[in-house]
Amino acid sequence: MQQIATATEAGGTATQAAILHRLCQTVERKLDDPDLTPARVAEAEGISERYLQKLFEGSGTSFTHYLRERRLQRASAELANPAEAHHSISEIAYRNGFNDSAHFSRVFRHRFGLSPREFRQQEVERATVSSVAAGQRGWPQQALAQLRNHHPLVNARKSAAPPQADCILPSNGGEHRHHHLAVEASRVHWGYFSRSLPPQAEVNSGDTITIETLTQHASDDPARMIKGDAGAESVFRWTPNAKNVDRRGAGPIDASVYGRGAGEGFGVHICTGPVAVKDAQPGDVLEVRILDVVPRPCRNRDFEGQVFGSSVAAWWGYHYNELLTERKPREAVTIYEIVEDAEARYARALYSYRWEPQTDPFGVVHATYDYPGVPVVPGSVKRRHNVLDGIRIPLRPHFGVVALAPREVDFVDSIPPSYFGGNLDNWRLGKGSAVYLPVSVPGALLSVGDPHATQGDGELGGTAIECSMTGTFQLILHKKADMAGRVFADLTYPLIETETDWVLTGFSHPNYLAEFGAKGQSEVYATSSLDLAMKDAFRKMRRFLMNIKGLSEDEAIALMSSAVDFGVTQVVDGNWGVHAILSKRLFEHVPRS
Amino acid sequence: MQQIATATEAGGTATQAAILHRLCQTVERKLDDPDLTPARVAEAEGISERYLQKLFEGSGTSFTHYLRERRLQRASAELANPAEAHHSISEIAYRNGFNDSAHFSRVFRHRFGLSPREFRQQEVERATVSSVAAGQRGWPQQALAQLRNHHPLVNARKSAAPPQADCILPSNGGEHRHHHLAVEASRVHWGYFSRSLPPQAEVNSGDTITIETLTQHASDDPARMIKGDAGAESVFRWTPNAKNVDRRGAGPIDASVYGRGAGEGFGVHICTGPVAVKDAQPGDVLEVRILDVVPRPCRNRDFEGQVFGSSVAAWWGYHYNELLTERKPREAVTIYEIVEDAEARYARALYSYRWEPQTDPFGVVHATYDYPGVPVVPGSVKRRHNVLDGIRIPLRPHFGVVALAPREVDFVDSIPPSYFGGNLDNWRLGKGSAVYLPVSVPGALLSVGDPHATQGDGELGGTAIECSMTGTFQLILHKKADMAGRVFADLTYPLIETETDWVLTGFSHPNYLAEFGAKGQSEVYATSSLDLAMKDAFRKMRRFLMNIKGLSEDEAIALMSSAVDFGVTQVVDGNWGVHAILSKRLFEHVPRS
Repeated sequence: MQQIATATEAGGTATQAAILHRLCQTVERKLDDPDLTPARVAEAEGISERYLQKLFEGSGTSFTHYLRERRLQRASAELANPAEAHHSISEIAYRNGFNDSAHFSRVFRHRFGLSPREFRQQEVERATVSSVAAGQRGWPQQALAQLRNHHPLVNARKSAAPPQADCILPSNGGEHRHHHLAVEASRVHWGYFSRSLPPQAEVNSGDTITIETLTQHASDDPARMIKGDAGAESVFRWTPNAKNVDRRGAGPIDASVYGRGAGEGFGVHICTGPVAVKDAQPGDVLEVRILDVVPRPCRNRDFEGQVFGSSVAAWWGYHYNELLTERKPREAVTIYEIVEDAEARYARALYSYRWEPQTDPFGVVHATYDYPGVPVVPGSVKRRHNVLDGIRIPLRPHFGVVALAPREVDFVDSIPPSYFGGNLDNWRLGKGSAVYLPVSVPGALLSVGDPHATQGDGELGGTAIECSMTGTFQLILHKKADMAGRVFADLTYPLIETETDWVLTGFSHPNYLAEFGAKGQSEVYATSSLDLAMKDAFRKMRRFLMNIKGLSEDEAIALMSSAVDFGVTQVVDGNWGVHAILSKRLFEHVPRS
Repeated sequence: MQQIATATEAGGTATQAAILHRLCQTVERKLDDPDLTPARVAEAEGISERYLQKLFEGSGTSFTHYLRERRLQRASAELANPAEAHHSISEIAYRNGFNDSAHFSRVFRHRFGLSPREFRQQEVERATVSSVAAGQRGWPQQALAQLRNHHPLVNARKSAAPPQADCILPSNGGEHRHHHLAVEASRVHWGYFSRSLPPQAEVNSGDTITIETLTQHASDDPARMIKGDAGAESVFRWTPNAKNVDRRGAGPIDASVYGRGAGEGFGVHICTGPVAVKDAQPGDVLEVRILDVVPRPCRNRDFEGQVFGSSVAAWWGYHYNELLTERKPREAVTIYEIVEDAEARYARALYSYRWEPQTDPFGVVHATYDYPGVPVVPGSVKRRHNVLDGIRIPLRPHFGVVALAPREVDFVDSIPPSYFGGNLDNWRLGKGSAVYLPVSVPGALLSVGDPHATQGDGELGGTAIECSMTGTFQLILHKKADMAGRVFADLTYPLIETETDWVLTGFSHPNYLAEFGAKGQSEVYATSSLDLAMKDAFRKMRRFLMNIKGLSEDEAIALMSSAVDFGVTQVVDGNWGVHAILSKRLFEHVPRS
């Protein structure tokens, strides 16, 4: 839930949300009790039954419906769990508060379209196929089912108060305007893309816009990356009574699958936007030119003007199941200072710490780095100094996430990149570069986030050096009717243009949402492979050379062999990436037809 | 077979070889005849039986032995072939000249250690596992078996006449000498590495050596790349009566498996050398510094002084089973001119042609581009001009192959790269760079070849722009006892150093010869994957950062995530490669301990 009301309203809403959160936790603890009633839950929380019903109704459901749904979800999770295979279906029904197994079968089939027995069998088969998913962070099936049949207790973002871009200024050119989108809780969405989000700004093709972005990892060292910064404080604010940006991820808002919190962390990036582009329609292409990228300086007086970043070697990193030294497994956070002076631009490590369990303000314990944004309590971790001593890491400032809203589903996990852009994690997307993205929904709905001070090809540990930054962009809409002969004429994927190169983005699954359907958001994690991504990059480059550069297939293959460089983009984003780089220089002497 | 004798001697030996070749072909055609005798074969070829026996004996076997071996090989190939599954074992025995199936079973078991029935079952299982090998160019099992039990009709290279380096000159420094190894039939080995090859030169650590290398693809346009060039003419000379370098590949010399010719093309690179390094012993490291790389100009008066190269999109290319346009499948050769003037260094395509069946001078028809070196008869292909029109491909001159002799087996296919170097196909191995290679055999035995004018990361179509070049190298031996604290202290793979970077070479199978044992040379083709190569590159880089740079594992992972670039080296060399690049610049300010 995103609080965008006034201070007093926010207080009231936050209190209600907190009570509802506690009610849900009580229900969760007592799902096995077949005699659980609203009256007993209300009594346990010291509120009236009527207020309880009102709270549930206020979020679009009823206590009875919610309770049954939770029981069915829990039961289905146990049916799908190989570790529960020795329990009969009746046992599972009883354990989840159903005292009549025939009734259980009936409501289960009504809910999931399969009998409990059929469902269990199907899940066994699925688990066999996707056992490689272990250790990845794809969506559990029950979460997907829950989301598909969404009756969220709390909506993603209130649309009652349509927000506005901070300010609109006439640009020098006169014709085009400049916009500025400051970062603030009401102007971000955290961990997901959605075609339903209200735009934070609307621009005309050709306009420029400055977009402030925050790294979702700022809470790894709040003193250096949040404190004193009104925008960051607004986005990260999370107390026992209030969480300014409730949803973190595209998962269920009622935090029921893993209980990690609203959105479950199925998606992690703080995205500023979306920005609507006037007249953009599906089939068009949006050119996003990056005119400038500037790190966001610290506003805390103790470090005023300095710039900091964080990098986490997390459980979703490529190395995680491969660790050599103790303790195993473990996660480590490194805090960096970003130095940009006349002589050099580099990052240097300040200190690091191993993750220790953190209790978030709502009382959830995070034994692992469940998702970025859980505040790290100073003193709860042991800081190690003299790490990467003397090493200076050259900067490659860029935005990890540049996305248009996908058309297939409403809540899309921000982690796996796809045809719509998203978490591309390609450092070539910095100042002076552009990315061309296919428009899928009216208005295009551009979101930007996941700023990186630098990253290696591969992003091996799971994150780059994550650092809040502000970008200035020019947005140019290319209408479908006017594309003939242009480089993006048949574009179906994010195409990056740097000053010197064309960079084509290949993925294990070019459009995983369409390919896997409802299961896309978990299957993509289970089936990623560089071999698949290489195949995709090859096919895209061949098509580019044939359709855009007018080569025959034989010429395209010959040129790829001798002049195109294939590289690993990332092996940590669910949908692994291989890019193909084509130098513009090759064509400098080509006669124009 | 490699002819290194005088002109008259060469004529005699070549004649004998040609007769033996024809005898073998006759045997091959009549394997099904249970009454085949040496007398009948001799009669068919118009020679005496005694001369026939002498020819077979001269190559270390006997007619009877050879005939039985060929029958068993053919029978085992049919037993292993799923397409022959409907034939009974007795039928297969009869078809191959055995008129008693009990006798067949006995000799088969004696030869292969399994009964025909057990052998067939084993091959069915193997085929299931390695069905992905289809379309790759790994060794068939029978070829491996044949080679392991080698009784080659003709040895790889006569060791009777130990060759010498062309000339040895005192270098300027006084202490170290300069050597020159001109290319010529007697100084190359084609398609394989071997610990048994006699050295062509012996150098001291610190000496420099100029090594001429030829592209094995020169016969794609003999007029531009062979004619008038005495060295190239010597290596490529192949008439109905003489083939100066007989063995092309590490396969059986009697061309029995596919009948493609001696060596079968299991390995393709013309390698100059080997060069022995005095005092080199297993456990040492040889540093091969590339001081200069110069293209080899054409000596044909029609094109005198120009430089040419060839690139083949061949059946072993990544694209081959993925072609979009007709005809399918097909192979295409592109001939390039290499331009190096003061203003620009680039390759431009001159023309291309599609491969048409070529009959080699020994009468074998090559319907596909079986291996490089089959002379393309002018007029047998249709040249297409205006290909890649106006496109200028920047040069990256380098050597695809820099190898030390492997220790595991004697004849090693030159295609899959491994711990000993070999076909690295990394364009970073050019002028100013060095590669560190672990020494496995006394003298190290360095071979250099596969010169490339340029190549893209991936080498997608199967070849680079292949172009004869001459390199000047300095060879520095690092003794095992003196390595502590050096960058190659625990080296187990080829480590490339450029002026700016460390480039670590990852492979699908870091040492496929040891990993797969006798089946290594075919299994590696069947099981290559970028995912495996990525894992290897990650592990090698972690070890480098921990052992050589003294980082903790947490530091190593953090640095890899933010500063190490993983890229695709090649997806066409059997053992696919991913490299990891570490910039030296990172460490410029690290205090020395």
